[in-house]
Amino acid sequence: MTEDRRHILALCGGVGGAKLALGLSHVLDPGDLTIVANTGDDFEHLGFHISPDVDTVMYTLGGLANPATGWGRDGETWSFMESLRAFGGEDWFLLGDKDLATHVERSRRLHAGVPLSEITTTLCQKVGIDHIVTPMTDDTVRTIIDTPHGPLAFQHYFVRDKCEPVVTGFQIQGAPTASPSAPFQKALGHAALSAIILCPSNPFVSIDPILSLDGVRGALNKTDVPVIAVSPIVGGQAIKGPAAKMMAELGLEVTSRSVAQHYASFLDGIVIHTDDAAEEQSLRTVCPHVLVTNTIMKTLDDKKRLADDVLAFAETI
Amino acid sequence: MTEDRRHILALCGGVGGAKLALGLSHVLDPGDLTIVANTGDDFEHLGFHISPDVDTVMYTLGGLANPATGWGRDGETWSFMESLRAFGGEDWFLLGDKDLATHVERSRRLHAGVPLSEITTTLCQKVGIDHIVTPMTDDTVRTIIDTPHGPLAFQHYFVRDKCEPVVTGFQIQGAPTASPSAPFQKALGHAALSAIILCPSNPFVSIDPILSLDGVRGALNKTDVPVIAVSPIVGGQAIKGPAAKMMAELGLEVTSRSVAQHYASFLDGIVIHTDDAAEEQSLRTVCPHVLVTNTIMKTLDDKKRLADDVLAFAETI
Repeated sequence: MTEDRRHILALCGGVGGAKLALGLSHVLDPGDLTIVANTGDDFEHLGFHISPDVDTVMYTLGGLANPATGWGRDGETWSFMESLRAFGGEDWFLLGDKDLATHVERSRRLHAGVPLSEITTTLCQKVGIDHIVTPMTDDTVRTIIDTPHGPLAFQHYFVRDKCEPVVTGFQIQGAPTASPSAPFQKALGHAALSAIILCPSNPFVSIDPILSLDGVRGALNKTDVPVIAVSPIVGGQAIKGPAAKMMAELGLEVTSRSVAQHYASFLDGIVIHTDDAAEEQSLRTVCPHVLVTNTIMKTLDDKKRLADDVLAFAETI
Repeated sequence: MTEDRRHILALCGGVGGAKLALGLSHVLDPGDLTIVANTGDDFEHLGFHISPDVDTVMYTLGGLANPATGWGRDGETWSFMESLRAFGGEDWFLLGDKDLATHVERSRRLHAGVPLSEITTTLCQKVGIDHIVTPMTDDTVRTIIDTPHGPLAFQHYFVRDKCEPVVTGFQIQGAPTASPSAPFQKALGHAALSAIILCPSNPFVSIDPILSLDGVRGALNKTDVPVIAVSPIVGGQAIKGPAAKMMAELGLEVTSRSVAQHYASFLDGIVIHTDDAAEEQSLRTVCPHVLVTNTIMKTLDDKKRLADDVLAFAETI
């Protein structure tokens, strides 16, 4: 595989996944990378179509993200939210003034009939992103969290209820009949496709919605290019988000082995953190290739180095 | 007429009218005043329903208005607009971050099926307004500006094109079949109705849309309470907005006499500025009662004093 004949397909959710996506964008040419973002946690709110994971990827790659939170925009102001609260409006989902421009402009274009993937391409170009960033689908897919008290829309679980409800399962509504977006399909069928990377995102609510789209899991099962997951679990914890809590509530061991088992039907390699090196042997019983490296990405250099490590690992498989 | 048996109905547009409405709200008890705001310049923009005159009245009476401009909100921030511009969004109509909360919350409630007048009541209460402020109608009325190059939607003429096109006429679409809002109807039929005041707003695009609603001009022609206009023309100029320019382009003399003639079928009294005292005799040929006083409202005291003057003038008719 030569440098000029490769294409990497990266699947990701929000914050953690976007970090590796940023690293990949720094070490790969624009034509060599397609980043597919989950839209299972998209929702309609205050009349806007909000795509949290697409936005996190766009803000991260566009250099607009808030470095303290990993989501939302840097230098954000909150006049809108404060005024909305004064009117008694719904204030459980924080919408910054800058962030709101994304939702307003996206919603305006959606209402005019433009597909989400085209809008994403346009907005990403406007913020200077050269790589391909695409929502997983232009169709409506909604992740529902099952709890002992009934189903919850994803953002109600995630933001409004702060991930506190116990999780008993997931429904990814609309996924089986939803088509991967055109850029996603193009990457899946790319003649030079050389690896598929599952970024360190939540397996259940970030990656599974992507895998559940019509034809995607089948394509991963059949592909002859390496499929590699970067584990979001380090030392029995998720670096960010509810992945570890969900695994425990579902009766799973909170380890990278559970992640590998979750992806077992197609997984060729898994990347785990050095602190979890002791798990390597046990992991090999479920996944043939294991890379142990530093998977914690604090700086841009961390992200680029991990991206390089993952790409080099792929070439060995 | 005693203080406890009176009700004043004030009709107004944006900035100039809102100033007198504020003065009236300071000298009248909440139950004694109904302020009706024009909605002929309402429009749909970026998915929002925007009611510029209702908002100007609400912000003015709620103490939220920008004192420098008379419209928009005090201490406004512009993060949304700057970000929208970066995405290539429509930026000809300035939407501040605080102001946006009004449009988002109003639009959300409208989409839920709540009438504009009820929403206005709720939002005004939230910002501490005790007096009745109501849009002229819950139905859709749209003022269109006729120009030699064709018709223009009001905000395209007013904001986008900065009132530069020559005006040849007006269409107030939807008005003949639009019903006055319930609070407007209630005020028109109020047992204690004691005066109807046309605030110093543009006769063509602020007051005429209100007068053109089903039954309103007829009610003013028939009423036995005094109908009084405060002239928006001072020294051959409009204090704010395109009224004088429009009058000139329509071949009218730019004087309060033209204003009085415009309202001739029902007008009992007109209030003009002291600088125009020389017009008084000529005015009496079209309007039986004329009050000459200081109609320029810079301070809150100016507004209260003019409100007092207008109310005292009404009692003499």
